Amino acid sequence: MTIAQLQSVHPEQSISDWIKWLASYGKTDNGGVTRLLYSESWLEAQLALQKQMIQRGFTVRFDEVGNLFGRYIGTDEPDSIILTGSHIDTVRDGGQFDGAYGVLASFLAASELYAEHGPPKRTIEVVSLAEEEGSRFPFTFWGSKWVTGQSDLETAHSFIDSEGVSLQQAMKDAGFGESVETQSTAETIQAFIELHIEQGILLEHKKKDVGVVSDIVGQRRYMIQFSGESNHAGTTPMTMRKDAMRLTAEFITYITNAAEQLDPTLVATVGRLVASPNVPNVIAGGVECSLDVRHAQTGILDQFETIIEQFEKVAKQNQMEMKRDCWLQIEPVHLSDLFVEQALSHADTLGFSSERMVSGAGHDAQVFGLTCPTLLLFVPSEKGISHSPLEWTDPEALEKGLKLLKAQLYSLAYE
Amino acid sequence: MTIAQLQSVHPEQSISDWIKWLASYGKTDNGGVTRLLYSESWLEAQLALQKQMIQRGFTVRFDEVGNLFGRYIGTDEPDSIILTGSHIDTVRDGGQFDGAYGVLASFLAASELYAEHGPPKRTIEVVSLAEEEGSRFPFTFWGSKWVTGQSDLETAHSFIDSEGVSLQQAMKDAGFGESVETQSTAETIQAFIELHIEQGILLEHKKKDVGVVSDIVGQRRYMIQFSGESNHAGTTPMTMRKDAMRLTAEFITYITNAAEQLDPTLVATVGRLVASPNVPNVIAGGVECSLDVRHAQTGILDQFETIIEQFEKVAKQNQMEMKRDCWLQIEPVHLSDLFVEQALSHADTLGFSSERMVSGAGHDAQVFGLTCPTLLLFVPSEKGISHSPLEWTDPEALEKGLKLLKAQLYSLAYE
Repeated sequence: MTIAQLQSVHPEQSISDWIKWLASYGKTDNGGVTRLLYSESWLEAQLALQKQMIQRGFTVRFDEVGNLFGRYIGTDEPDSIILTGSHIDTVRDGGQFDGAYGVLASFLAASELYAEHGPPKRTIEVVSLAEEEGSRFPFTFWGSKWVTGQSDLETAHSFIDSEGVSLQQAMKDAGFGESVETQSTAETIQAFIELHIEQGILLEHKKKDVGVVSDIVGQRRYMIQFSGESNHAGTTPMTMRKDAMRLTAEFITYITNAAEQLDPTLVATVGRLVASPNVPNVIAGGVECSLDVRHAQTGILDQFETIIEQFEKVAKQNQMEMKRDCWLQIEPVHLSDLFVEQALSHADTLGFSSERMVSGAGHDAQVFGLTCPTLLLFVPSEKGISHSPLEWTDPEALEKGLKLLKAQLYSLAYE
Repeated sequence: MTIAQLQSVHPEQSISDWIKWLASYGKTDNGGVTRLLYSESWLEAQLALQKQMIQRGFTVRFDEVGNLFGRYIGTDEPDSIILTGSHIDTVRDGGQFDGAYGVLASFLAASELYAEHGPPKRTIEVVSLAEEEGSRFPFTFWGSKWVTGQSDLETAHSFIDSEGVSLQQAMKDAGFGESVETQSTAETIQAFIELHIEQGILLEHKKKDVGVVSDIVGQRRYMIQFSGESNHAGTTPMTMRKDAMRLTAEFITYITNAAEQLDPTLVATVGRLVASPNVPNVIAGGVECSLDVRHAQTGILDQFETIIEQFEKVAKQNQMEMKRDCWLQIEPVHLSDLFVEQALSHADTLGFSSERMVSGAGHDAQVFGLTCPTLLLFVPSEKGISHSPLEWTDPEALEKGLKLLKAQLYSLAYE
């Protein structure tokens, strides 16, 4: 069967219908979704998905941490697993699409392929990952880190939610934990494919149907502290001030201009700023601000770090002090070049406009990308809005993403 | 008697001793002072001062709002009142010098002059003003506004403290209010002289003994709001952002540079900044910041306002919005040129280095300055620190201020 033939196959229910259905689990009053890890709504959603998988002939299982798997076993190479999916958890009052779209599209793509072509040559496994957002516990990618052996139960046990419940207890209460018998699939995963909404404005801005991600950015998050001298706003002449707010302002302009100049895909954001004493008639003696820096190349991130450091001189010239603490460092992940080329080619065949792009947000694909050939596909997000009830992608755009995923899965599992 | 002779007269107790004595009323655990309007410590301090005044032969009275007056009646022109003093109230955990120094120095200067020269030609009246700081009620200069007829009981009744007590009730509880019989002195005040700590760093920086204030600045306080678009810090390219934090930073640099360029005595301060949502990985969609502007000339303040306004264009160029609200506007006050010349000349005769200067802070003198010839004298404040237990002025510097005040009072009341 050719890709053109695949395109003509229609599921009974559209992907949009399926998304609405899943959003009913954990629906909030203002149209958002809250499915925190191991919560009741989360568990109900996983069990409902399990039921749907069973009805479509998947062989299903949960692993120790609550990741849900459904597979169609391959006829030729059953141990070669083509894994596809995304995450089921959401932020508090998040959108309907983030994570859920990828889980449901994988489920639909696999079941449609099975219905149309029978069992695949290589095993197709759909995964509804337990956790990606870090919304309940200060710990992200728990689901994918568990599958790929990048985290263990011992590490996870140290995390506590805002109500004092440990991850271990929450997991146990939901019926998971060490007692669940399963077998690790890490060693046999031949590929991981994730479809996700962009959560950005690039595809919308460039009017592209789909995005094919070549790299997921590395992130460095800094806490920057400027120390000056608190003084009377009326009696201290401008030339005698050590105004930490003014210095911080200069820094923000300096660092955002520098980011623009260094590389077009580099982003630098000061999103948080806290001044002290933060009152109108007192010169700020201290300012603490965040700096979030992202780029797909470690070299650029390193180079930018020296640019940040250079501002210490400006602080000194103004008789003030600058302290810098890099409290989060995530390395960039380069995804499979082969898969990227395949996906771009499939998009072309399907008549979809596509964009080879970098993901500025983190995704489960970056965790899998460290252990197996990985592909991350995007569809546009309206206005880039995400983590909000206003999150939206047009049904047509969702269909196009599903079709591209299906084409890619066909070539990996059937050809 | 010449000024040189006056200089050689010593009080029994130094001004530093008197300041320590008064600071015992409302002393805080960490060495500061809290004497909020009409509080117990405030009332005890006023009554203790009244007792000291009586012992030194002053004719004393409280007015309706609790201002304490002590006078030596003039022999030639009893109705011509030379009023001198400052305020008795403090901020929470404030310093020992702010206000108290001026009250005590006036008391000592008058009583020493009386002891040395007998009754003055014109009436010398020392005043311990009830309120200047606005620390308990959101209302400043209550004492001096009452004396000069710039405020009335009706206005004052509308203010409520943080515990829900009205100014009216607090006044009544302290034994003051409409029932107190008194006569207004406003019409007969020929001059007002206030001695105060600088609460700034100019005198210390210029190594001057005393400051003679020609003008008290006008103040304009603005609330500025910048509205951009909140977006993902990772997925939004730099060129597609509407980053309100970046725009605010540009504004702070623009406006502080502009202040420096427009006039050397203009000050502009952004002391308060609140960003929204104020988290590290989200581009700030909105920022609200304060802008405190002060100068002695209304023309300069007007000119600066148009400079502020011009930034709206920059906001528009960046597809963002800037809103500006001037929520406080106090006009500059020009003090008596004659008194300034006299005081500078006295300082010279006494061998004190002096600085003709502008006061960047508000003082009771600015209220009196609207109704009678007024003089404001400063002594240095160590590091400019004020409204803090760390507030400090050397005993020697305090003595010099006292001597200058005494010389000025002598020339106004005795010559």
